[in-house]
Amino acid sequence: MITAAVLIIGNEILSGRTQDINTSWLGHELNLRGIQVREARVVSDNKQEIIDAIHALGAKYTYVFTTGGIGPTHDDITADAVAAAFNVALPENAEARRRLEEYYNDPAKLNEARLKMAKIPEGAKLIDNPISAAPGFNIQNIYVMAGIPSIMRAMFKSFADTLKGGAEIHSLSIKCEAGEGDLAAPLTEMQNKYPDVDIGSYPACDDNNFQYVRIVLRHSDPERLQRVHDETKEIISNIC
Amino acid sequence: MITAAVLIIGNEILSGRTQDINTSWLGHELNLRGIQVREARVVSDNKQEIIDAIHALGAKYTYVFTTGGIGPTHDDITADAVAAAFNVALPENAEARRRLEEYYNDPAKLNEARLKMAKIPEGAKLIDNPISAAPGFNIQNIYVMAGIPSIMRAMFKSFADTLKGGAEIHSLSIKCEAGEGDLAAPLTEMQNKYPDVDIGSYPACDDNNFQYVRIVLRHSDPERLQRVHDETKEIISNIC
Repeated sequence: MITAAVLIIGNEILSGRTQDINTSWLGHELNLRGIQVREARVVSDNKQEIIDAIHALGAKYTYVFTTGGIGPTHDDITADAVAAAFNVALPENAEARRRLEEYYNDPAKLNEARLKMAKIPEGAKLIDNPISAAPGFNIQNIYVMAGIPSIMRAMFKSFADTLKGGAEIHSLSIKCEAGEGDLAAPLTEMQNKYPDVDIGSYPACDDNNFQYVRIVLRHSDPERLQRVHDETKEIISNIC
Repeated sequence: MITAAVLIIGNEILSGRTQDINTSWLGHELNLRGIQVREARVVSDNKQEIIDAIHALGAKYTYVFTTGGIGPTHDDITADAVAAAFNVALPENAEARRRLEEYYNDPAKLNEARLKMAKIPEGAKLIDNPISAAPGFNIQNIYVMAGIPSIMRAMFKSFADTLKGGAEIHSLSIKCEAGEGDLAAPLTEMQNKYPDVDIGSYPACDDNNFQYVRIVLRHSDPERLQRVHDETKEIISNIC
């Protein structure tokens, strides 16, 4: 089983000022590649918190994908924290600097703050940034990306094909207008009968009222999934 | 300093099927009460993962707010996990049962699955659910709420006034059309001069282009905040 964690770095997510949409996008994209996101964390712009999260998640999952904190300002400390987590130096990377020089094309614009974005932990591989040049990087099983969703997505796509994936997890869903409490017994029966199929039930609301329940079945084998889906649908047909 | 963590429980958030909006709402609401959310985690519907997160977050922060996993189906295991985390039993709670009986008002509807929602860890206090009756609960510094945003919000409001808060953190922001790299040096200068004021800079995008940077200053003292805001605005006026 190939697993992953997402680590979102930034005070603005925790204060509620910015709505994180990177976790769900990464969860979906990784799932398509057979990589299951098992955990996500949001930490503040605090070096020790980032180091601790990198250590905990890196040891537990196949991959860790971080977003945020790699810009030019004082609160962008992700590269510094990742270098510290792996106990390596954070020198200026010649190729990263070349990309920034090409992008800014003006020595006055490429000031000390922007050059901070060329500092990459020793031994890391650059991650391309087709939008604004300043690269992310990959060190061991940690992939460090920008926080801005459009840039993060472009970065992810630049290396996604190099990830070791598993079988894609397919899903099928059943919409049912019964309450979850009426569906619970038959769904438990199906889950016990097919423990390898991930069966979830999600009430969907409209203005505080339960309108329906969406039952989601997930499995890597589309044929098996279809069979269990059909049997589940049959078993609850009298209440949906 | 009063701190908090948010713990989101549910496979559907990690797979990207459902976009979490509870973290940002809680971050904002808690902030208004002077409670700083320092960390958020999303874990799957896995008992040991929930137990580990409760232990880690409960020991580190003043409060932990969980959402998700308290419904009637087989994948709703939060109450079970929290009881295990505190090593207490999970008996049927008479008051919780009374509320469910009143709400469903039909013995046939209040089946075994729905009665699972009356099981509350021993020693916990109920959290009111004005929408669909099934209560959340509070045990020590852990507040367990539903995952459906409308219900979570109603639950939170039912106990929010009992939380020990701090001074409200006020914020002021400055919109600047310069790049973050041009703002970095003056912002670093201001941050060093006023280390007690939280200064963040957030590029805002429109179709992949940087349109402007929003500088956000946060502090509990509105007068001090206004002074540092005015000085920051002055110092960057030539580049914004």
